[in-house]
Amino acid sequence: MRIIDIIIKKRDNQILSKEELEFVIRNYTNGTIPDYQMSSLLMAIYFNGMTKKEATDLAIAMRDSGDVFDLSAIEGLKVDKHSTGGVGDKVTLVLAPLMAAVGLKFAKMSGRGLGHTGGTLDKLESIENFKIELTEEDFVKQVNEINLAVIGQSKNITPADKLLYALRDVTGTVPSIPLIASSIMSKKLASGSDIICLDVKVGSGAFMQTIKEAEKLARLMVEIGALANKKVQAVLTNMDEPLGNNIGNSLEVIEAIETLNGEGPKDLETVTFTIGALLMEAANLAKGDEAIQLMKEKIATKEALNKLIEMVEKQGGNSAQIKNPDLFKKAPQIVAFKAEKNGYIEKMETEKIGLAAMVLGAGRAQKDDEIDHTVGLSFKKKIGAYVKKGDVIAEIHAQEKGVKEALTLLKEAIIIGNDKKTITLIEGIIK
Amino acid sequence: MRIIDIIIKKRDNQILSKEELEFVIRNYTNGTIPDYQMSSLLMAIYFNGMTKKEATDLAIAMRDSGDVFDLSAIEGLKVDKHSTGGVGDKVTLVLAPLMAAVGLKFAKMSGRGLGHTGGTLDKLESIENFKIELTEEDFVKQVNEINLAVIGQSKNITPADKLLYALRDVTGTVPSIPLIASSIMSKKLASGSDIICLDVKVGSGAFMQTIKEAEKLARLMVEIGALANKKVQAVLTNMDEPLGNNIGNSLEVIEAIETLNGEGPKDLETVTFTIGALLMEAANLAKGDEAIQLMKEKIATKEALNKLIEMVEKQGGNSAQIKNPDLFKKAPQIVAFKAEKNGYIEKMETEKIGLAAMVLGAGRAQKDDEIDHTVGLSFKKKIGAYVKKGDVIAEIHAQEKGVKEALTLLKEAIIIGNDKKTITLIEGIIK
Repeated sequence: MRIIDIIIKKRDNQILSKEELEFVIRNYTNGTIPDYQMSSLLMAIYFNGMTKKEATDLAIAMRDSGDVFDLSAIEGLKVDKHSTGGVGDKVTLVLAPLMAAVGLKFAKMSGRGLGHTGGTLDKLESIENFKIELTEEDFVKQVNEINLAVIGQSKNITPADKLLYALRDVTGTVPSIPLIASSIMSKKLASGSDIICLDVKVGSGAFMQTIKEAEKLARLMVEIGALANKKVQAVLTNMDEPLGNNIGNSLEVIEAIETLNGEGPKDLETVTFTIGALLMEAANLAKGDEAIQLMKEKIATKEALNKLIEMVEKQGGNSAQIKNPDLFKKAPQIVAFKAEKNGYIEKMETEKIGLAAMVLGAGRAQKDDEIDHTVGLSFKKKIGAYVKKGDVIAEIHAQEKGVKEALTLLKEAIIIGNDKKTITLIEGIIK
Repeated sequence: MRIIDIIIKKRDNQILSKEELEFVIRNYTNGTIPDYQMSSLLMAIYFNGMTKKEATDLAIAMRDSGDVFDLSAIEGLKVDKHSTGGVGDKVTLVLAPLMAAVGLKFAKMSGRGLGHTGGTLDKLESIENFKIELTEEDFVKQVNEINLAVIGQSKNITPADKLLYALRDVTGTVPSIPLIASSIMSKKLASGSDIICLDVKVGSGAFMQTIKEAEKLARLMVEIGALANKKVQAVLTNMDEPLGNNIGNSLEVIEAIETLNGEGPKDLETVTFTIGALLMEAANLAKGDEAIQLMKEKIATKEALNKLIEMVEKQGGNSAQIKNPDLFKKAPQIVAFKAEKNGYIEKMETEKIGLAAMVLGAGRAQKDDEIDHTVGLSFKKKIGAYVKKGDVIAEIHAQEKGVKEALTLLKEAIIIGNDKKTITLIEGIIK
């Protein structure tokens, strides 16, 4: 087998075999295939696409390029969720304790990554002394005891995907649906869960800007899951405004706690319940309204909140902060972003709002950037709200850094006009 | 300017500017742009193509990546020809002395390259003591004196093209018409000639297998020439059988001498006259039948042959061989390839015939391979000829090496059947 023949085959729109894709991934990971051949293959895939069988074979080959988690020592059904990345997306923080409360196992190994805010790990680290490093033994033990653990990845998961992603990033081959789908699914297939719900974000702050594209991506990932013998479902959720009101690490933990107290924003609750109901349905536990009712009960009885408290305690964190969010460390200043005229908020360019959080220090542009857990944005008004000139639209929680730039970005991002717009939050479900 | 933005622009089928293409070539040549970004750009160009303006800008940027010949010290109109590569193509050896005889300047710097036989330089080196290394001063002086010189390239011509070609070869991006056109034209634009005729080969032994593709390539090269202020024309010539009867270095020189004596094969004469007439027309010297008549006279009077003799003498070679081709060194054995049945020669797979010459040692598969000037093939029959079982179709001039393999290749390549086929030699002219 020669890589040049595989490149030409894909360039000429023929279908690559499982053996060819394994050859590519094995030899790219071990350095035998040089970047310049891989990047031309990636561009040929960008143009000619892949069948669902090819995308599955690619995902499995990438899964097998590194360690695969074996969660078989955890009793019961392991559920997991994955978001393609949204602004203000703290669903995992609410969903994980909820699923633990209804009796499913939420055993998550999480990465950090780049973005407008930190990842789930960074958010949890805004809780004092919260430990993300557990031995595999302690991790399994904790999930068996309380149904719930979120820890950092110490293993060498999908090294091929890491190499490929870095190459795609600099060769114009990121926005390829089969490459995105097999990248995400390679990690999910390595995660050891039985049931997975994918949250594919659509809109101005999301990677997929149209429903059509998002649906294509979601459908392919669900198909890859099925071909790889996992129960995978997907929900398309709107990202034309931030999810919930808070963006920033501790601010998002606080909002998650509010939601677990039944006092969270409606949109965050809806997305969480939608994903939770799909996971519960796949686990044959309950479905639709019945499942949602069960989750509401777990909130009303504080059982879900208690799961979060238990996890924080098991992982060495200060659970007093969960019981009383006022104990979270605060940013030194709060600057108001105010409406410049009367009218309805018609548009929020979510991408720019995310960027505003990042310039304040809430996220990482580079891998080694430090995150400030206290900074971020807290919205008082979102799309459809009527504001009068001078009304506070958002509070900027900040250190010295980035305030001016954040104000400029918010001013550009938020459009006030005469139309009262509404947003369809759940754009579709793919089973 | 960033290469990633340029890749994305081409990927998204937008037109690259002159400045962007200059940026790419400059920074790829100096090593700032890595191969893996260049190869993804090349694959994007493969899929989305280029406008004629883009291809011209690319050709000019590649021309300017190295030395450009200044032939202004040569008086009169400098003409040049270029073939996209055929089997048995010794047109330059006939055309150059003919053009010199009609009063045009043929000042050619030639490369060696890979192929079924050597290049023009290698062919000329089958003449004893022929020197291909002249100083620029002596080169100019010789052309001013006798209108004619063919020498090796010592300068650093189009280094960007060399780098790009090597990369294309291993990344599946060779068969792209704008990339082929700008590669060829970058070298032609650097060659310093005023008038250029391109011989684009079509058929089984050629890179372009269909007339449509060949015409597209030819048209684009002519357009690049016009945009770069050169008089460029192209002729599409058939390559469904070898050109002339001989393939191999000294064998081709001998056939060229025969042609300059008026005793050459008709097809070689026709292609040479067609190209010659186009060059003479562009030089406002004569056109069509009138031009052909003039060339025929130069053959009848031996003026053209004398130009070749003069060149050989000026460049230190043994001109006695030109006067008497029996003096060329011969291969130790001649093996006959015979017809296995009665019938017409219906098909000659030219590519395989070229390969047969190469396995005998007439060409180079690798850059450092040694060429044997004496070996090759001499055809007695070509397409349309009737043969009886046992008739000699070709003579194999050989050392020990490759005879068996050559016989097998010829057997596969030459199809005898019941139909008397004819070939249209000149498939089109693009001005």
